[in-house]
Amino acid sequence: MKRIMLTIAYDGTAYFGWQKQEGMPTVEQRVMDAIGKLTGESVELIGASRTDAGVHALGNVAVFDTNATIPGERYTPALNSFLPEDIRVMDSKETEAEFHPRFDAHSKRYEYHIITGPVANPLETRYAHYVREKLDIEAMKRMAEDFVGEHDFTSFCAAGAQVKSKVRTVSLAEVTEQNGHIVIAVEGDGFLYNMIRIFAGTLLAAGLHRIDAGSMPDILSAKDRSFAGPTAPACGLKLCFIRYK
Amino acid sequence: MKRIMLTIAYDGTAYFGWQKQEGMPTVEQRVMDAIGKLTGESVELIGASRTDAGVHALGNVAVFDTNATIPGERYTPALNSFLPEDIRVMDSKETEAEFHPRFDAHSKRYEYHIITGPVANPLETRYAHYVREKLDIEAMKRMAEDFVGEHDFTSFCAAGAQVKSKVRTVSLAEVTEQNGHIVIAVEGDGFLYNMIRIFAGTLLAAGLHRIDAGSMPDILSAKDRSFAGPTAPACGLKLCFIRYK
Repeated sequence: MKRIMLTIAYDGTAYFGWQKQEGMPTVEQRVMDAIGKLTGESVELIGASRTDAGVHALGNVAVFDTNATIPGERYTPALNSFLPEDIRVMDSKETEAEFHPRFDAHSKRYEYHIITGPVANPLETRYAHYVREKLDIEAMKRMAEDFVGEHDFTSFCAAGAQVKSKVRTVSLAEVTEQNGHIVIAVEGDGFLYNMIRIFAGTLLAAGLHRIDAGSMPDILSAKDRSFAGPTAPACGLKLCFIRYK
Repeated sequence: MKRIMLTIAYDGTAYFGWQKQEGMPTVEQRVMDAIGKLTGESVELIGASRTDAGVHALGNVAVFDTNATIPGERYTPALNSFLPEDIRVMDSKETEAEFHPRFDAHSKRYEYHIITGPVANPLETRYAHYVREKLDIEAMKRMAEDFVGEHDFTSFCAAGAQVKSKVRTVSLAEVTEQNGHIVIAVEGDGFLYNMIRIFAGTLLAAGLHRIDAGSMPDILSAKDRSFAGPTAPACGLKLCFIRYK
């Protein structure tokens, strides 16, 4: 028995997220189907990040166990021949039997992209959230700084999420401008459900002067979802990479 | 009667090109339909560039004549409310009755985007042509230089195209690397059918060392389509803008 680790990129537009759901097109289901066609086995995938419907990924990670004798690196071209073009295995290798893509993750990087202007450029809106109004980027930068650190992120967690602790450590949260995009980059050891999209929606509210850029400490200490901004749309979010120990 | 000038951007993936064709989804048809819904008139559009199926545009230009009293700049938001999200009117204004978007064009800029690497990144392949092999970019740059100038571009025109003269003036043809893309930028007073895609395919052949980077003068002087490289796929091509006198 071998444990195979896949690094997977996808355009999430056409999918109901990563996690398999009966009767819905999901990335996990497509990858499982491709593995089934290749090995003849019905495998269970363990994914690192359950991205939401419409969210993109450059480097999500998943593992599965197989009795097939195919060398680890051969899964990349072999699975890609069975996958739709909007899902690609970028890398594959054999890994230790104990390796767990979520529990062993050291940190993850996400980016949230925003474009602004009088009209939404149709060559950008597939991978960026469009806002008509000009944003106060300095206010967004200032607010992002206070997101860094070990905090209880209850205010940035979708209501109803079932996790024991909502304490996470964010190691990087910054706002930059790149090729006409406003890019919110976030790195941390783990994220709560919708945490990055609520963070992006809160920074957007600051950029629109709907909330004060200095209010992040108050939002965090409230431990109440209603204190943060709205959840920003999925299309702007991208899981960039996952680092392992 | 007013003549209205529209600057139109579109993601060409879902369309059979600009020009209307019975029973096919085309950009021109969608824009005509939107104008019809807005003004109640059935108008003829005159477009600047008949982009092919799958080709994208940031700034194609079209005009139409109308008896509607709507101010020119109001067509932008009004038409966008009737258009699909992958087609956007970026700008609109009233123009002179004699203005012709093709004959009055001073120059056009196109870009052809290429990505390379072991696996095609699914977040890039909608707007860039993927090639597995590493390309010799210096060879592509060298060859592009010889495309500039006034030439008979018969070798870069799809067989069967019906135009009197195949002499055109290319004012810029350069290859650069931008954010991981190899970008072939071309500007000129006008282009023959498939000219940029054949040029891109020829540069690709040089980048792969299938043809000599010094062979552009011979290809041009042959005035024979078979001397140039293959027509590169539509997805990599984008009409950037059209300049007027």
